[in-house]
Amino acid sequence: MTTPLRHLPTDSTRTASGGPVGNGLFTYSQQVESWVIRATKPVSYEIRITDDLFNPKRRDLLEAGERTTGPLRRFLVVDAKVNALHGNRIRAYFDHHEVDYHLHSVPAEETVKEFQTAAHIVREIDEFGIDRRNEPVIVIGGGVLMDIVGLVTSLYRRGTPFIRVPTTLIGLVDAGVGVKTGINFNGHKNRLGTYFPAELTLLDRSFLSTLEHRHISNGLAEILKIALIKDAALFTLLERHGDLLLEEKCQGLSSTGELAATEVLRRAIHGMLEELQPNLWEAKLERVVDYGHTFSPTVEMRALPSLLHGEAVCVDMALTTVLAARRGLVTRADRDRILALMSALGLPCWDPLLATPVLGEALRDAVRHRDGQQRLPLPVGIGDAIFVNDVEEEELEASVKELAELALVGGKR
Amino acid sequence: MTTPLRHLPTDSTRTASGGPVGNGLFTYSQQVESWVIRATKPVSYEIRITDDLFNPKRRDLLEAGERTTGPLRRFLVVDAKVNALHGNRIRAYFDHHEVDYHLHSVPAEETVKEFQTAAHIVREIDEFGIDRRNEPVIVIGGGVLMDIVGLVTSLYRRGTPFIRVPTTLIGLVDAGVGVKTGINFNGHKNRLGTYFPAELTLLDRSFLSTLEHRHISNGLAEILKIALIKDAALFTLLERHGDLLLEEKCQGLSSTGELAATEVLRRAIHGMLEELQPNLWEAKLERVVDYGHTFSPTVEMRALPSLLHGEAVCVDMALTTVLAARRGLVTRADRDRILALMSALGLPCWDPLLATPVLGEALRDAVRHRDGQQRLPLPVGIGDAIFVNDVEEEELEASVKELAELALVGGKR
Repeated sequence: MTTPLRHLPTDSTRTASGGPVGNGLFTYSQQVESWVIRATKPVSYEIRITDDLFNPKRRDLLEAGERTTGPLRRFLVVDAKVNALHGNRIRAYFDHHEVDYHLHSVPAEETVKEFQTAAHIVREIDEFGIDRRNEPVIVIGGGVLMDIVGLVTSLYRRGTPFIRVPTTLIGLVDAGVGVKTGINFNGHKNRLGTYFPAELTLLDRSFLSTLEHRHISNGLAEILKIALIKDAALFTLLERHGDLLLEEKCQGLSSTGELAATEVLRRAIHGMLEELQPNLWEAKLERVVDYGHTFSPTVEMRALPSLLHGEAVCVDMALTTVLAARRGLVTRADRDRILALMSALGLPCWDPLLATPVLGEALRDAVRHRDGQQRLPLPVGIGDAIFVNDVEEEELEASVKELAELALVGGKR
Repeated sequence: MTTPLRHLPTDSTRTASGGPVGNGLFTYSQQVESWVIRATKPVSYEIRITDDLFNPKRRDLLEAGERTTGPLRRFLVVDAKVNALHGNRIRAYFDHHEVDYHLHSVPAEETVKEFQTAAHIVREIDEFGIDRRNEPVIVIGGGVLMDIVGLVTSLYRRGTPFIRVPTTLIGLVDAGVGVKTGINFNGHKNRLGTYFPAELTLLDRSFLSTLEHRHISNGLAEILKIALIKDAALFTLLERHGDLLLEEKCQGLSSTGELAATEVLRRAIHGMLEELQPNLWEAKLERVVDYGHTFSPTVEMRALPSLLHGEAVCVDMALTTVLAARRGLVTRADRDRILALMSALGLPCWDPLLATPVLGEALRDAVRHRDGQQRLPLPVGIGDAIFVNDVEEEELEASVKELAELALVGGKR
C-alpha cells in the first residue's frame, strides 16, 4: 500500500527583488540569508476523578492509544509498596482484559529519584517493546515515581504517551495535576526535567486508605499552599475539617468527612489548574504556586531522607509567613492561625536547616531559576499573594529567629 | 518591589445544572468529574548564514538572551578538535566583548553520545551557574555534540536556551537545521531525546576547510537525501558539481565552486525546513526526510565506530534505491545514476552488515518507531518519494543480493 506525497516546490525561496519571502511555512530572507521558523504545538490532557479503578468493569485504564486490531500491549510501572498491596488486583484486571502487559515494580522514594532509576525503566521498556504512540506506559505510584516515569516517557523515542494513577495525596493534588517531570541531579532537586503532560490522569482517593498519616499530612501541605495563595474558603475548610481529613485519610468514613474530602480535593485541584493552564511551560516565572518552593528544594535535598516534600514546603511556608507578617502583609492573628493549622495538619513549622547559609544558598539558586530575580511569592492575608525581589540576609535571619521562638512556644520545635 | 496578582475565583467550577463548564482556561465537567486542559506552545527559531563569526566586530554570538545590565555570562561547549583549531580566536572574541564565560571542551563522536557525556556537561553548567532564560549555552561543534548539548539544555531546569554553531557539513545541513536532540541508549541510536529548537543557529561554512574529505562526504549524504526525495534540480547540481564541492570542501576556491556551494547548501537547508516546519513534533510519522533512516540507525550502531552517520544513511539509500528499482519506481538508468553519484561523492553503497538478520531487526524497530507500520519512504524516480508498508524479508534479501552485485561491478565493494 502506498501513499502519494505532496511535493513542495523549492523555488518558493526566491523573489525577483531578493526580499524576505513568507511561503506560509517560514520566513526566508535573502538579504540577511536567514530563515525564521515558527510553529505552535497543541497539547491537551485530562484529569479524571474515578474510583474502583481495578474493577474489571471499568475501562479507564485501557483508554488512550487503544488499537483497533490485535491485543493491547501495556508497560506498567508500579511503586513497590503499591504492588505489594494491589499487585494481584492490577494483574487480574489486565489479565481479564487480555492485555499483553509487563509490570515493572520500583521502590520509589526521593533518594532514588535519579537517572539510574530512570535508565533502568527505559531498559525494561526497550526489552518489552512498545509502539511509539499507541501503547501508553501506565504509572501507578506517588509523586516521585510519576515524575521519573514522566521524564522517561518524554525522552523515550522523544515522547511516548503515558497514563498516571497517583496513589498518594501529594500525587493526587500536586504531582498528578501538572505537566512537570524530573529527576534530581548533582544534589539539586529536579535539576533535569521536561514539561510533558500525561494523556490521562486517574484520581482515585481509595489508595490513600493504606497510607501512613504522615503521608496524608504531606499532601495536605500542598493543599494548604493553594489555600494560602488564592483560596480563603479552602483555608477555612482545612481549619474546620483538616483534622478529620487526616484522621479518616480522606476516605469519607463519616458524612462530614466525605463532604470535606470531596470539596477540599476538588478546590485544591481546580485552584492548581487555574494557575497552571495559562502558564503551562512557565513562560512567566512569577508563579504563585511556587509559594513554599523557594527555600524548600535546597532544605529538602539537604535533609534527605528526613523531610518529605510537603514537609519541606511547609517549613518554607512557615518561614515566609513569618517574613510576610514582619512586613505587615499578614496580621499576627492570621500568622498564628496559619502556624496553628500547619500543626493541626501534622506538619512541621521548623527544621534545624533553617539557617542563613542554607537559606542564602537556596535563595541564590532560586534567583538563577527565576532568571535573575527573586520573584519570591509571599502571602497577603489568607488567600492572596504578591511577589517581592528585595529580601536580604538580615530579614531572613530575623524571620528565622522569630519563627524559632514561635515554634518553640507553640511546642512545634 | 512588589507585583499585584490576578486572583481567579474558584467558584467558576460550578453551574446550577452541574453540566460542563468552560472558564476559558479548561473544561470542567461535574458529571464525569473531569478536567480537560488545552494549551498551545508557540516556538520560533532562526537559522542564519554567516561568516567570520569570531571577528570581534560581529555580534551574532552575543545575541539571544542579552541582558540590559551587568556583564554577559555564557557557557560554551566546544568540540575538542574545534577548540584545538579555533580555541584561541573563540577566547579572544569573548574576552574582547568582556563576557564572563566558561569554555568546556568535549571530544565528541558517536561512541560518546551517551548520558555520561551529557551528565558531565550538566555538572559543569551547574558549577558555572547560569540564569534560567537569559544566558544561553553556546555549542560549537558537529552533529553529535549539538544533539547532546541540545538534550542537556532542554533538560536543564526543564529548558535553558541555546545557540548552535555547526562546524561540520552534516551539522550545517542536517543536525543544525531541525529541533531534535538525543543520545544513544541501550545500543539504540537516539533512543532518548527531545524536540528543542536552538534559539539561533549560525551557519558558517569556513569551518569545513579543516575537515577531512570523508566528513565532507558524510554531509553530502544528507544533501543527496533531500535531492532524491524532493529536489531533482539539487540532484543535477550534485551530479555536475559534487566532485568539486568535495575537492574544495565547499570553500568556493573557484567561482563555479562558490556558486555551487552556495546554491547546494541553500537548497538542502530550505528543502529540509519545508519538510520539518509543518511537522516539527512529528505528529505525522510519514516523513520523507526519514528516507535513508530506516535501516541505517541499526547498521550505524552495529558498525560503530566504523561508519559515519551519513555513510550509514547512504548505504540505506543504496539498498532502498535498488529495492525501489525492483518495484519499478525508479528506472534502471536512474538507479545507476544514483549509485554512481554516491560513489562520486565519496560515499559507500555497501556494507557487510547488509544482511537479513540485521535488516530484519532494523525494520522491526522502525515499525515500533513509526507506531506499528513500516511507513518506509522509497524514491520515485529522482526527486519524489512514496511510503510503503509491505516490504518482506524475501524482497530485502533479493535487494541486498542485487546491490552486492551492482556494488561489486561498480568497484564499490
